[in-house]
Amino acid sequence: MRHMPKDTRQRMVATTATLLQRQGYHATGLNQILTESAAPKGSLYFHFPGGKEQLVEAAIAAAGDSLDRFLGAHEAGSTLESLDAYLADVAGALEETAYLAGCPIATVALEVAPTSAALGAACSAAFDRLIERLADWLERDGFSAGPARQTAQLLYSAIEGALLLAKARRSVEPLQVLRAQLPALVGALHDPVHHGDETAVG
Amino acid sequence: MRHMPKDTRQRMVATTATLLQRQGYHATGLNQILTESAAPKGSLYFHFPGGKEQLVEAAIAAAGDSLDRFLGAHEAGSTLESLDAYLADVAGALEETAYLAGCPIATVALEVAPTSAALGAACSAAFDRLIERLADWLERDGFSAGPARQTAQLLYSAIEGALLLAKARRSVEPLQVLRAQLPALVGALHDPVHHGDETAVG
Repeated sequence: MRHMPKDTRQRMVATTATLLQRQGYHATGLNQILTESAAPKGSLYFHFPGGKEQLVEAAIAAAGDSLDRFLGAHEAGSTLESLDAYLADVAGALEETAYLAGCPIATVALEVAPTSAALGAACSAAFDRLIERLADWLERDGFSAGPARQTAQLLYSAIEGALLLAKARRSVEPLQVLRAQLPALVGALHDPVHHGDETAVG
Repeated sequence: MRHMPKDTRQRMVATTATLLQRQGYHATGLNQILTESAAPKGSLYFHFPGGKEQLVEAAIAAAGDSLDRFLGAHEAGSTLESLDAYLADVAGALEETAYLAGCPIATVALEVAPTSAALGAACSAAFDRLIERLADWLERDGFSAGPARQTAQLLYSAIEGALLLAKARRSVEPLQVLRAQLPALVGALHDPVHHGDETAVG
């Protein structure tokens, strides 16, 4: 069994990530975090001497881990199959939570990244992990490194944008339209790589 | 000259839109709005008996108007040329404002659309105006109506996602990469329409 203080720290981070996802940075107060994570008052500055910004930084990193694991759990035969399965599950999660689920990192990035260098860097690092995973998948599909990274960034942008429209409309239609467009999108940006001395022609 | 009360109302709406863009919904307090718009205290409930939600609803609609005019001001020979010029100016605005500029609608949509039906509808309507303009441009380029609308939605999602990455990274690179990808993206989703009895083949 772990030490109690570590459990408290983990609960605080997980609670913060959930609250950021539902309501963003500014609406998430320290008292709400302490109450909802059943943490004693002194535990905030014990675990996070830097206060709210440090706790949110940890929550963004944890959310990045968790989103990356969730994305990774959908790995299938190709990037297209993986993303299709992933987007289907994201759409399901939005519907099940009445559109409260979503990307906690996006909300914080829009609210405070321009004014907090630490939180901007945390959001950016979390986004980059997800983009790197997509880029790895695309390389396995035959993209060379540069185009894989750029296509991954475009795909990730399109996913975040579709999530935003889905939340505003309270409809999963933007995600379903994106799923339908993915084959054309990935096909158009495909750049078959030359593997060693084997000359692959698209 | 307009009545003074109307000027006050317009100033409150414009100030709110600016604050939403920079810091989001929850960080934007009524006192800050009144102070920064130099509005007398009583003017809030005189012009907006529904309080903050009603004022933000008006600010989102005004931001939608303003963004739509800004997009429209970049109309050129083709959707690609128009969007390229638009994204170049958006990148310039981000750099000039140290990444405080951006889309006020996106921040509000992520923060509160799932919990406020009125604000969700306002964000959704503002997004739809921009998507409709893109769809009109694509139809003029030869897309038929259905694919034009779906491609416009994808383009708009990709733009919002690139803006999000740009703010998190404090770099315009995501917007520049998107500009470079647009021709492949629009080309891939192109569906040449049959005009009357003239059979256009792509």
